[in-house]
Amino acid sequence: EDLKKQRDVKSSDPYSSDPERHPVLRPNSLKPFTAEPPPEILSDSYITPSVFFFKRNHLPVPQVDPASYRLHVEGLPGGVLTLSLEDLKTRFPKHTVTATLQCAGNRRSEMNKVRQVKGLNWGIAAIGNATWSGAKLRDVLLAAGYGPDVTQWARHVQFEGLDKDITGTAYGASIPIGKAVSEDGDVLLAYEMNGEDLPADHGFPVRVVVPGIVGARNVKWLGKITVSTEESSSHWQQNDYKGFSPGTDWDTVDYKSAPAIQELPVQSAITTPAEGTVIDRSAEMLTVKGYAWSGGGREVIRVDVSLDGGKTWQVAQLKSSDKEEDPQTPPPLGRAWAWKLWEITVPLPPEAQELEIICKAVDNSYNMQPDTFAPIWNLRGVLSNAWHRVKVKISEDNGEE
Amino acid sequence: EDLKKQRDVKSSDPYSSDPERHPVLRPNSLKPFTAEPPPEILSDSYITPSVFFFKRNHLPVPQVDPASYRLHVEGLPGGVLTLSLEDLKTRFPKHTVTATLQCAGNRRSEMNKVRQVKGLNWGIAAIGNATWSGAKLRDVLLAAGYGPDVTQWARHVQFEGLDKDITGTAYGASIPIGKAVSEDGDVLLAYEMNGEDLPADHGFPVRVVVPGIVGARNVKWLGKITVSTEESSSHWQQNDYKGFSPGTDWDTVDYKSAPAIQELPVQSAITTPAEGTVIDRSAEMLTVKGYAWSGGGREVIRVDVSLDGGKTWQVAQLKSSDKEEDPQTPPPLGRAWAWKLWEITVPLPPEAQELEIICKAVDNSYNMQPDTFAPIWNLRGVLSNAWHRVKVKISEDNGEE
Ligand SMILES: [Mo]
Ligand SMILES: [Mo]
Repeated sequence: EDLKKQRDVKSSDPYSSDPERHPVLRPNSLKPFTAEPPPEILSDSYITPSVFFFKRNHLPVPQVDPASYRLHVEGLPGGVLTLSLEDLKTRFPKHTVTATLQCAGNRRSEMNKVRQVKGLNWGIAAIGNATWSGAKLRDVLLAAGYGPDVTQWARHVQFEGLDKDITGTAYGASIPIGKAVSEDGDVLLAYEMNGEDLPADHGFPVRVVVPGIVGARNVKWLGKITVSTEESSSHWQQNDYKGFSPGTDWDTVDYKSAPAIQELPVQSAITTPAEGTVIDRSAEMLTVKGYAWSGGGREVIRVDVSLDGGKTWQVAQLKSSDKEEDPQTPPPLGRAWAWKLWEITVPLPPEAQELEIICKAVDNSYNMQPDTFAPIWNLRGVLSNAWHRVKVKISEDNGEE
Repeated sequence: EDLKKQRDVKSSDPYSSDPERHPVLRPNSLKPFTAEPPPEILSDSYITPSVFFFKRNHLPVPQVDPASYRLHVEGLPGGVLTLSLEDLKTRFPKHTVTATLQCAGNRRSEMNKVRQVKGLNWGIAAIGNATWSGAKLRDVLLAAGYGPDVTQWARHVQFEGLDKDITGTAYGASIPIGKAVSEDGDVLLAYEMNGEDLPADHGFPVRVVVPGIVGARNVKWLGKITVSTEESSSHWQQNDYKGFSPGTDWDTVDYKSAPAIQELPVQSAITTPAEGTVIDRSAEMLTVKGYAWSGGGREVIRVDVSLDGGKTWQVAQLKSSDKEEDPQTPPPLGRAWAWKLWEITVPLPPEAQELEIICKAVDNSYNMQPDTFAPIWNLRGVLSNAWHRVKVKISEDNGEE
């Protein structure tokens, strides 16, 4: 009877059917499940393996039967278009895009050190780079009746997930119509991640992938698409995922006064060495690695690295693949959706006992990262893209004398 | 005979036919003429009067007869298209765009304080906002034979000015083809500025206006347009107007390693009060004004102002016109070409004897300005967009006791 009771408890828990996760992941919360990999894994491969890709669910993972799955497309003159998974795969050309997704809260823990913010205490690894394959949202909207008349009034494309809270409210978000229908926007209704069916945590069987746009708009377990004059009315579009001034607190915040985050600002971080690493002086050389990315399809063109707390800077080597023969063909202008990995190997400064390593990236609009966190602090701890700083110690290897 | 000699000298000076300029302008160089207005003029009106608009010539101002003026469009399948000024005005719809132009070197003087750079010592006023009217470059390219076949190979649109150096080399620059032909790019072949014929210093009779893109690509006295696989081979495209790491000096610089500046990063500055102003304590309130703008059509969504050197911040009021009833209809997403003026009126802090006023802007990709200049220092002193800082003194008004 105890066992039956346990099962009952378990089955009344909406999270009980969440999938297994890789044990190396570091959870920030269990219900909903949110987790990031150890940072050094990110620079191990240009494409982040799906099992290590950060998980950011807002609700329980829905169990979706691919055979009975239906996607509804609404708000267009032709009425509702309903598509099965098979329809999505067969009626529309399959496109593959390599795109980095980043959580709005990536690196929130560094902002938290300035002053406590509200949100999951993400480290630097709530970001990943994957190949995504599926139908173009543009193609599906065209099939559903999108045309010149619609451009006169439509402003947003809303997405609703099949993940629901206990009141039945689904996760939702929207993106500007221009991004959705542009030939160069590369927005996908993706059914594959890294060449395989989407994993349950990443939206099986279909998710939206909106390259260059904050993770929160890349709606998973996609159930409904609505073309509209309005943004999504969801909590996450209206009263979350927005940026505010450091002077704005919970008493004064007016969520209507700020736009919903879409494109993210330029970002970079050091994945290795880790904070507090002790480096042996006899090593003589130090290799620093990390990632760099910018939103809106802007390409990272340079990463500067300092070993002396920002007094002097050197330029890191950028990588756009795991192949030795970089550079690859550069992405078309405005469609640089994927991150660059970077590394630099430098002599250990002879006198130093401690190094403050810093990285900062520059994108092709020559936007730079801000120096410090306090001036970009905001009550939700989003958009945390100041320079990444890592302190390491150098130990004198007396044994070699 | 002396008089004749004088006249000969004068006429052998290629700058002798340069136009008169408004005496309030502050020249940075006379030949070529470069000058900016007093900063406080910028916040006097949302549209910068043409006489006060910063001048940045690279060469002598050419004297162009509007009747014999011809624009040549080359590199397209149909061969060379030649247009008179009358053709431009009558064969293509006239479009008007309000757009801010900024010199790549605006605010260079602040970077110069970190370490000497090479370039004109611009203050904060090498920026202005005007209405520009003319034909769309897109329409002219379509008339010249631009079509689907051309998109397969064309990458850049090159512009050549009628201004030439003593060897006969013309000023030149190029922009990416996507910007040139996009319906939303709003690139104009402008023949009017603020409702009148272009002034001589601004490119009479025709200049390119490339909204959202660095001033240097907005070629004046336009003589030739060439659609090409390559960027302009000009000095200014290849070996100037590029950004580098603070660690790069004239011995190590490789101009091929950096992309030509196109879109500019987010920018703002305080136009009033000026550095060193003494404010009477009895005034009780202080009004701070300035401008804010971002490249690439990204809209400025917030300006933060600090009176205490960056410890605390308040949000300024943004203005998109000179009318009292702001906000105006916001520009379409990605087409926010014009600056915002901003202002804030705050009580004088009771204890302070000196204020360090700072402004910083945020655009709708949530890019922010860097805190300080040293980490963005570059040998040409371009892209100088760190926080603007102005120190003022507060004098105690003992007479009122
Ligand atoms: Mo997120
Ligand atoms: Mo410039």
